[in-house]
Amino acid sequence: MATAGLASWRDGPAKQAIIDFVTSATTPGQGFVPIADRIATFDNDGTLWVEQPLPPQFDFVFRKWADEVKADPSLAEQQPYRAVITRDSTFFAGVANQDPEAVGALMTAFARSWHGTTPAEFDAQVRAWLQTAKQPKLGVPYIELIYKPMLELLELLKAHEFRVFVCSGGGRDFMRVFAEETWGIYRENVIGTAAEYHYAEGRIVRGEHALGGLDIGPGKPEHIFAQTGRLPVFAGGNADVDIEMLEAARFSVLVNHDDAEREFAYTSGGEASLAKAKALGWTVVSMKDDWITIF
Amino acid sequence: MATAGLASWRDGPAKQAIIDFVTSATTPGQGFVPIADRIATFDNDGTLWVEQPLPPQFDFVFRKWADEVKADPSLAEQQPYRAVITRDSTFFAGVANQDPEAVGALMTAFARSWHGTTPAEFDAQVRAWLQTAKQPKLGVPYIELIYKPMLELLELLKAHEFRVFVCSGGGRDFMRVFAEETWGIYRENVIGTAAEYHYAEGRIVRGEHALGGLDIGPGKPEHIFAQTGRLPVFAGGNADVDIEMLEAARFSVLVNHDDAEREFAYTSGGEASLAKAKALGWTVVSMKDDWITIF
Repeated sequence: MATAGLASWRDGPAKQAIIDFVTSATTPGQGFVPIADRIATFDNDGTLWVEQPLPPQFDFVFRKWADEVKADPSLAEQQPYRAVITRDSTFFAGVANQDPEAVGALMTAFARSWHGTTPAEFDAQVRAWLQTAKQPKLGVPYIELIYKPMLELLELLKAHEFRVFVCSGGGRDFMRVFAEETWGIYRENVIGTAAEYHYAEGRIVRGEHALGGLDIGPGKPEHIFAQTGRLPVFAGGNADVDIEMLEAARFSVLVNHDDAEREFAYTSGGEASLAKAKALGWTVVSMKDDWITIF
Repeated sequence: MATAGLASWRDGPAKQAIIDFVTSATTPGQGFVPIADRIATFDNDGTLWVEQPLPPQFDFVFRKWADEVKADPSLAEQQPYRAVITRDSTFFAGVANQDPEAVGALMTAFARSWHGTTPAEFDAQVRAWLQTAKQPKLGVPYIELIYKPMLELLELLKAHEFRVFVCSGGGRDFMRVFAEETWGIYRENVIGTAAEYHYAEGRIVRGEHALGGLDIGPGKPEHIFAQTGRLPVFAGGNADVDIEMLEAARFSVLVNHDDAEREFAYTSGGEASLAKAKALGWTVVSMKDDWITIF
């Protein structure tokens, strides 16, 4: 039986369901999953680390955009810059709802910011941000706000020959900078919203366009299938934009942010996924009840 | 020292260069390569299996197109169908030379053939072809025409904690069907020319467009970087369309088809890569002299 690990998980139905699934998937019998098929995928923001008040990458991006608006004030009239300056959450709600116009404006802004950048330059920008930026409410670097119980879950799955991928709406290249030291998975196991790259004169530079669409909603199983040639067996998420990925998996875990004291309590952006979890029997993880330690 | 394996390789400069590189990359010292960076990438057609008179996937594709022309004779007037029917190699030379018009016509035809197909349907088509089609000159199924020395090289690299990827101009999904049983690498380690997929109503189907460009020339390092977040340390190829991938690697192997007796002898499509190998010190493998066994 899959008992090692999960030390930060309180005994209860969520922990038990996970252990039962992993045991069944790796024991000859009806629920057995061949090793080749053992793909596990996890959302990042709100699933592996704190996403309130905004996913951490927005902090990184907003700083970049603030510099750009300073250099070219006309940008302040356009989205997404206007939304950032006026602290108008409507635009980003549109992105979360997969509104094509909002998504398009966001992708165009990403391209403007990093078009022509080499991977080394981009990595250095992310590393500098990781070392200096602090989460506004909790006052610590973002990288310290990773959920310990989820890291234990990743380790449990790896120990049972699952290949673990992170699949986030966030930037693939952004996450790849810290994936290895933080999640213990290789860069190639990170799936996310991606820029195209061009190779010329012996080097790679970032292109103008995205490679595939925004990695949310149906984009998640699409990106996972493109990267791995399979749909996941095990998936973890926390929001409505994770529904399709969780639906595509055989066993799905939904993190419920119900711990106002130790983290945040909110269901905004996750209402539909909570309803789906109930309807489809996904394992809902209560941060308050199921996790002994959060960070 | 990296001595295990390579039993089908004759002692000589090519085998020695490979062993020296792998030893150096995995031994603390100047040439050491951290495990995370140990990415090895191999072309498929002409590098891992026979590509004469045409890469095997063309046989699979041409049969499909012949059925389509039968169903819609007007297609016979268009490329690439016309080139197949009239056995005109000019069109495919155009593809190999990365002519945008020829590449575009090819991609459009691929889309027409498989748009709306599920992965299970596509896999079944490839499996049926693998079991029935035979190489026209050698009279055996294509899958028997994989170079044993190269499989040993893949194993040597895996044994030294390299993650081995195949990166071919051929179809990613086509190769993924046999990657695990044939090369001993997971589907996610196959990079190639790729269709986009759409997820709807709980299932994945193939879309109309390509995801990224044709995986040849600069497309190879671009696809490799997109999939892995790195450029390769070790690369193997055999043709001009592999040049950029081989240039991007620290150690590069070029397979030279100089064995008319046991396989084929040709330099067509590989002249520039042979010149580059000489100029840049890549390890050229003579099939005639360096390989004891070919299949």
